[in-house]
Amino acid sequence: MVHNSEERGVQGHSPLLTLSNILKPQMEMVDGLMRSAALSDYAELIPKVINHIIGAGGKRVRPMMTIAAARMCGIVKEKEVNAIRLAASVEYIHTATLLHDDVIDEGVTRRNIPTANRIWGNKASILVGDYMFSQAFSFMVEAGSMQALAVLSHVSAVISESEVLQLQLIGDINIPEADYLQLIDAKTASLFAAATEVGAISAGASASKRLQMRRYGWLFGMIFQITDDLLDYFARHEKFGKSIGGDFYEGKVTCVILILKSLITTEQRKWLFSVFNGSERTPEMLDELQALLLEYKVEEKAREMARAYIAEGQKIIAELGDSSDISHIMSELLVSTANREY
Amino acid sequence: MVHNSEERGVQGHSPLLTLSNILKPQMEMVDGLMRSAALSDYAELIPKVINHIIGAGGKRVRPMMTIAAARMCGIVKEKEVNAIRLAASVEYIHTATLLHDDVIDEGVTRRNIPTANRIWGNKASILVGDYMFSQAFSFMVEAGSMQALAVLSHVSAVISESEVLQLQLIGDINIPEADYLQLIDAKTASLFAAATEVGAISAGASASKRLQMRRYGWLFGMIFQITDDLLDYFARHEKFGKSIGGDFYEGKVTCVILILKSLITTEQRKWLFSVFNGSERTPEMLDELQALLLEYKVEEKAREMARAYIAEGQKIIAELGDSSDISHIMSELLVSTANREY
Repeated sequence: MVHNSEERGVQGHSPLLTLSNILKPQMEMVDGLMRSAALSDYAELIPKVINHIIGAGGKRVRPMMTIAAARMCGIVKEKEVNAIRLAASVEYIHTATLLHDDVIDEGVTRRNIPTANRIWGNKASILVGDYMFSQAFSFMVEAGSMQALAVLSHVSAVISESEVLQLQLIGDINIPEADYLQLIDAKTASLFAAATEVGAISAGASASKRLQMRRYGWLFGMIFQITDDLLDYFARHEKFGKSIGGDFYEGKVTCVILILKSLITTEQRKWLFSVFNGSERTPEMLDELQALLLEYKVEEKAREMARAYIAEGQKIIAELGDSSDISHIMSELLVSTANREY
Repeated sequence: MVHNSEERGVQGHSPLLTLSNILKPQMEMVDGLMRSAALSDYAELIPKVINHIIGAGGKRVRPMMTIAAARMCGIVKEKEVNAIRLAASVEYIHTATLLHDDVIDEGVTRRNIPTANRIWGNKASILVGDYMFSQAFSFMVEAGSMQALAVLSHVSAVISESEVLQLQLIGDINIPEADYLQLIDAKTASLFAAATEVGAISAGASASKRLQMRRYGWLFGMIFQITDDLLDYFARHEKFGKSIGGDFYEGKVTCVILILKSLITTEQRKWLFSVFNGSERTPEMLDELQALLLEYKVEEKAREMARAYIAEGQKIIAELGDSSDISHIMSELLVSTANREY
């Protein structure tokens, strides 16, 4: 259920591209670890499935966040291997979630190629997801930090919890906005928060720096998810790569719908309710919905939320007082994530 | 795919019952931990699913092994809480596996009640399994032992790996017996081995004691699985609780079939091959198969294997030189596990 428009290759001349260039040696080691943990002596299906999903051009934003956070906290060379292990762990957790999500959502394509469940079946996706999850914990054990283990085991439980909640809530637009925000938090932002926090931990950062890095990751994740939710209704199809209205047809209540709900008339709310509780959502309903979204300027309202998060994130970077290239890029990244068009 | 005839309540006057009486206070704490970790502030489906499966009368053999191993290694009172956490962790890993197994095997009943996937659907079972898995790691973090974390994250990966292998091998009776034994090892014995090993770790046992306890758990698991495989063909139905031939109808190649394969004529092997590779297995085929199993004394051969494991396990207990009640029971337990009739 996690949205992943970031998974479609790095945008030209973006802060993300710059960051991935600076962190190239570390990210190559992350990749190497991920691929070597996919090897199985006797179950050949495991490397097939894992290499299929990790090889499909994901941008590895989460592990990059771990490495970047470690650098911003001044990690010393000898400890960098632990940041790399934790970064691989974060991406393995994320990828395991994707494998299971595609089973849950009956996904057919991801990152523009057929999903693993489509090729090898649901059973393989469930079991290989479990395998990746265990290997993620093995990476953490190798990194040797009980603090990082606590952060990542907690966030894993929170992610599953939020997915169960989302399963309960499909079609239910009566969730209060606060609950929905908690859901976004759990689903996406919490893993970004954990990614940056464990980066700080690997560098031996102070408690306050660790919390600042965690908050930065959380803000980044919120901006990321809000933008993703917007793109599902407002993206120009040719760049976006996914069909417009994916969330809509699945009956997923995202922040776009919650903002709209808070603005419309009782009559319109009844209609919206019937659409999301109904068993079928048609292109005509989507057209009608998009007219409402335009009328009530929902995109602008959501972008306002994102802007507040950007401002807070930039303030944190400034407070950290690190004058390296990476800090500068991490600040720009908040803006470019909100502005991405696909 | 894990067999669980142990899940049907403790047998009267058995070593297992005696052990569970001795360890009652600790096992109640394990239960309390398991139930409290099932609570979710906002996803009510989680405690529903977890309480359904852990409340269904499982005998908690694995966590009992952890506590018993800790006691045999002379755990001090102050450290007992960590053995309890690790025991809860082992049972959570096991239960998460069961939830996912029932999705994979399209299970309908477990422990004589409807499976969670039957009641709440596959999606809930996948996600709650993931949640339990994460909580298992949180228990380990609380126990604070990096060694135990290494053992349990490794065994979790091994279990998933073996399940992927079993998925690849359904209907394939051409696996060499050695590979099959490795599969049993991975599927069942390795978790028992980890359960006793982390018990020893929580007690701060020496490396050699730790290895002995690990080996004991492994032997126990092998005896357990061989007996389970036998019961699937030879149990008296009214006690067994599962239908005879479950493995057969699913096309699962267990040690019963592998032993038979090594004894029969080429003609009979061809027939066996066609049965397990065919798309349908009938009651008539099962009758014919059981006639062969009797003719070639397969049950006796399997029991011989189990007896060798019992002897080795008893030798380990003797070498440990612990004269407590628990050591005595752990020795008897090897025999009663091989002799159980359901």
